[in-house]
Amino acid sequence: MLSKAQISLTTSLQHKKYRKQHSLFIVEGIKSVMEFIHSSYTVNSLYATADALTKMGNLSQKIKYTEVTAAEIQKISCLNSPQGVLALVEIPQEESFPWNTIRQQHSLVLDDVQDPGNLGTIIRTAEWFGIEHIICSVGTVDAYNPKVVQATMGSLSRIQIHYTDLSTFIEKVNLPTYGALLSGSSIYETSFGQAGLIVMGNEGNGIGTEILPKIQHPVTIPRIGQAESLNVAVATTVFCSELARQKLIK
Amino acid sequence: MLSKAQISLTTSLQHKKYRKQHSLFIVEGIKSVMEFIHSSYTVNSLYATADALTKMGNLSQKIKYTEVTAAEIQKISCLNSPQGVLALVEIPQEESFPWNTIRQQHSLVLDDVQDPGNLGTIIRTAEWFGIEHIICSVGTVDAYNPKVVQATMGSLSRIQIHYTDLSTFIEKVNLPTYGALLSGSSIYETSFGQAGLIVMGNEGNGIGTEILPKIQHPVTIPRIGQAESLNVAVATTVFCSELARQKLIK
Repeated sequence: MLSKAQISLTTSLQHKKYRKQHSLFIVEGIKSVMEFIHSSYTVNSLYATADALTKMGNLSQKIKYTEVTAAEIQKISCLNSPQGVLALVEIPQEESFPWNTIRQQHSLVLDDVQDPGNLGTIIRTAEWFGIEHIICSVGTVDAYNPKVVQATMGSLSRIQIHYTDLSTFIEKVNLPTYGALLSGSSIYETSFGQAGLIVMGNEGNGIGTEILPKIQHPVTIPRIGQAESLNVAVATTVFCSELARQKLIK
Repeated sequence: MLSKAQISLTTSLQHKKYRKQHSLFIVEGIKSVMEFIHSSYTVNSLYATADALTKMGNLSQKIKYTEVTAAEIQKISCLNSPQGVLALVEIPQEESFPWNTIRQQHSLVLDDVQDPGNLGTIIRTAEWFGIEHIICSVGTVDAYNPKVVQATMGSLSRIQIHYTDLSTFIEKVNLPTYGALLSGSSIYETSFGQAGLIVMGNEGNGIGTEILPKIQHPVTIPRIGQAESLNVAVATTVFCSELARQKLIK
């Protein structure tokens, strides 16, 4: 059974302020919760119906779980159709920024992506294509927002998201910096080399004026039809796919 | 001012049954409505606020418009934040199926794509990459659903959507048929030739058992990370981008 304090804590985590205060976020659904249990994340609490617990099999003794009813899950869920299991997971505290790792690979850099569905899709897609780090501007939507977590379909558990001042980061990391822009070299004729940053901009405004001067290689996705723009998650997909192609096909 | 009959007709068009009965669908927003006005579609009626009419400039005399208040638009809009203009557009009646055109290019084939946002994104993305025809199974979500129309950002006005029995269509068109599957040749090592069909499946179940035997070339998007699947609009993006790359880079 859920206590009032548990209900109040969990529902508060729908807001960024309380996620930050408690350093916790919500994950829902058997598949996603299992992926977080088997990741480097720490599951702080788990609320599940008897049915969901059966489906999840033997849980490690380290997982503190509370059996609840479907009606109780409904009270704390962010979903229209709750799935019988909800976990509170700890937001990882970054001890030291992984400069060395990032300097050896391609990472995505997001400049104020606003839509939770877009960020979720970007995380899921990037992880499919082997991206390990996504560096987000402070103005990018919170990756621990329940809508983002849901849209990543568990991929959030396997990718590292960093929020930082992009301008300082780009200067300090000192990597070839590619930006998705409406004019630039064709992505199909761009060689992305061994490591670098791929900068994607905001849905409405693209890459901000502070970051634009730091783009060394403006890259564009050639347009054959007449659409005015591509969705940012779609544009990111094209970049991730092209990076993968260049890695896989020598 | 809006009559009761106009309100009743417009709100009925949120349902497929009435769109079919009246052969009309809803388009909202200045930009999208203008794109339909300048397309081969016929705008049956236009409801706009004085402010929106000013922004739209001189409308052709052929467009029957009614000036309405923001409150009236609110009554008939499908959006949370209505944009001051809503048009009823005629669903095109296909006189003869464009077999010859389709046999000379690459078209997308959608087998029961269910989510309106996914179909809208697929239409917008396909149009960017120069796809002219999308052939949908009868079970695919209706492209004239207001949520789909909204997500296409006007691209629906420049692409042809056909609903038909896929099995019969694939047999009759007799083109190389590629299918997006979890196992198959790598998309990066597949040559798509001059014309063909790219079949994308349903969100949960992929390509259906009736269509699977007709896939001559199973093609996969190589996975580097551990995500279980890609969103169907994302996977379609990878195919459209690779088709474009092969067309643009000889």
